[in-house]
Amino acid sequence: MNLPPFDLLLIFDYLGTMAFAISGTLTAAHKRLDIFGAIVIGFVTAIGGGTVRDILMGDLPVAWIQSNNYFFIILAGILITILFKKVVMKLRGTLFLFDTIGIGVFTVIGLEKALDLGINAPIAVVMGVSSAVVGGVIRDTLTNEVPLIFHKEIYATACITGAIVFLILYYMHVPEIICESITVVTIIGIRLWAVRYNITMPQISLTDKKGQ
Amino acid sequence: MNLPPFDLLLIFDYLGTMAFAISGTLTAAHKRLDIFGAIVIGFVTAIGGGTVRDILMGDLPVAWIQSNNYFFIILAGILITILFKKVVMKLRGTLFLFDTIGIGVFTVIGLEKALDLGINAPIAVVMGVSSAVVGGVIRDTLTNEVPLIFHKEIYATACITGAIVFLILYYMHVPEIICESITVVTIIGIRLWAVRYNITMPQISLTDKKGQ
Amino acid sequence: MNLPPFDLLLIFDYLGTMAFAISGTLTAAHKRLDIFGAIVIGFVTAIGGGTVRDILMGDLPVAWIQSNNYFFIILAGILITILFKKVVMKLRGTLFLFDTIGIGVFTVIGLEKALDLGINAPIAVVMGVSSAVVGGVIRDTLTNEVPLIFHKEIYATACITGAIVFLILYYMHVPEIICESITVVTIIGIRLWAVRYNITMPQISLTDKKGQ
Repeated sequence: MNLPPFDLLLIFDYLGTMAFAISGTLTAAHKRLDIFGAIVIGFVTAIGGGTVRDILMGDLPVAWIQSNNYFFIILAGILITILFKKVVMKLRGTLFLFDTIGIGVFTVIGLEKALDLGINAPIAVVMGVSSAVVGGVIRDTLTNEVPLIFHKEIYATACITGAIVFLILYYMHVPEIICESITVVTIIGIRLWAVRYNITMPQISLTDKKGQ
Repeated sequence: MNLPPFDLLLIFDYLGTMAFAISGTLTAAHKRLDIFGAIVIGFVTAIGGGTVRDILMGDLPVAWIQSNNYFFIILAGILITILFKKVVMKLRGTLFLFDTIGIGVFTVIGLEKALDLGINAPIAVVMGVSSAVVGGVIRDTLTNEVPLIFHKEIYATACITGAIVFLILYYMHVPEIICESITVVTIIGIRLWAVRYNITMPQISLTDKKGQ
Repeated sequence: MNLPPFDLLLIFDYLGTMAFAISGTLTAAHKRLDIFGAIVIGFVTAIGGGTVRDILMGDLPVAWIQSNNYFFIILAGILITILFKKVVMKLRGTLFLFDTIGIGVFTVIGLEKALDLGINAPIAVVMGVSSAVVGGVIRDTLTNEVPLIFHKEIYATACITGAIVFLILYYMHVPEIICESITVVTIIGIRLWAVRYNITMPQISLTDKKGQ
């Protein structure tokens, strides 16, 4: 038993889940959805990534069905946002930090789950990154937007890079807790750096540089 | 064996399924989709909720794959709508009633299935409500709209209230048939009341009441 | 063992998968998504149909998780499109052919998988057609469009017709390789004919022919 590191991962998992629930609720509010819509979007943003990952891997029922913890953490995030929206909106910096920690932790959890199930490395990377980004993709699709991460954010790239770092360390037999820590720090670092310097992924141009 | 009540639930299930198929087909027609598009939207509206519920709970293959009944009921609903669209559109009141009965019955079926699988009460409510509303959410997403129930309708709230009523009665050991009946009547009552008096859920305002 | 025909089906499966990945990547580029968005859309277009089919039938983990082949074929299709987009765009005729072969083969694979799992004929047709068309539906939904096949293309109808032809031959105990070949040729033939003569499915009009 090595409880402390696991607990730390779990605490970060919960923090990230709550940050995702809050981000979904805020998006719903911006879209002028009603309270039920906000609850659904908050919920789906928080559990979407892990849910799709578990379905694809056949690990059913999905994790949040088997425990009430996620349900109440997400509900708390949604209610806090609805009741104290002005305070929440002022805490954008903190939320951004939780959200960034969240994608790091979700990537690691997805990767480890896939590797535990004997899935090959390239697909394990897909599972890790899916855990982190699919919730946001569903949030944007349900609110009738092209998903943000397809055209604006670099954080999926941060997750992919982190996942590859994890696998390199993992196959070098570095202890799991160190793999996890370096991966999470890598993902957080790349995202903070990208946001700080406004780095985005290039588009695929279909036309000449001279043409329209 | 207690066939009559079960049969009644099943008949309402079929009526609700057909009402959902018709509603999907009408939405597709309004969106000027072609006949294939109408068939898909009709189908997905009718089976979407139960499908997502079964996938999340790992009860696969999903129910409608294992029986032809749903397939032919849905197909009948779609064809009736395509062939007799003027008659169908005049029957809006009847359809609204079937649809309302449908969401009541779907909520009860989803709840009971979740409880049978040993799922905790809060998540069982989510499963019940999902059974009732997810078909409509997929219908609206595929036709490129923000789902209606996120900003206009109160019927998800009716389902949640009904589901909570069901659980209270269920844990008081009220006979199942009475739990079911009271729940369905509660859901139908709330929805009819909300539509009659034009009650909607409040939005989450992100601005001051004075501000824009 | 009857390897050559199986191999042929597999080669066509891979060609179709790559054509789908390329079509997804081109759509993403037209929508001005970034490279990560293009990779996701390419991937989802290529694996979406088979993934949804496998989830509905409970055949998990989904096929592409268990083998790296699809992953690398799809990645190759995406990278070729990104790196050599001008060449790829000039090869539209070839791509259209691969894509058309792909939907024929995907329909046959989905049908056979469903029949192998003991699924009834009408639902098996749904599974076959889903294998062929759902990837494109997800592609269009994620890029915020009403799915093309719901209002413009006839190819789903080609798949349905092919699937019915397959079943008739199958129940007449025609050897599987002949069933497969005739089905694929039927689907390809209908699609080429429909595109050549610009045949589309009728819409469902909700108004009088005289009215607007």
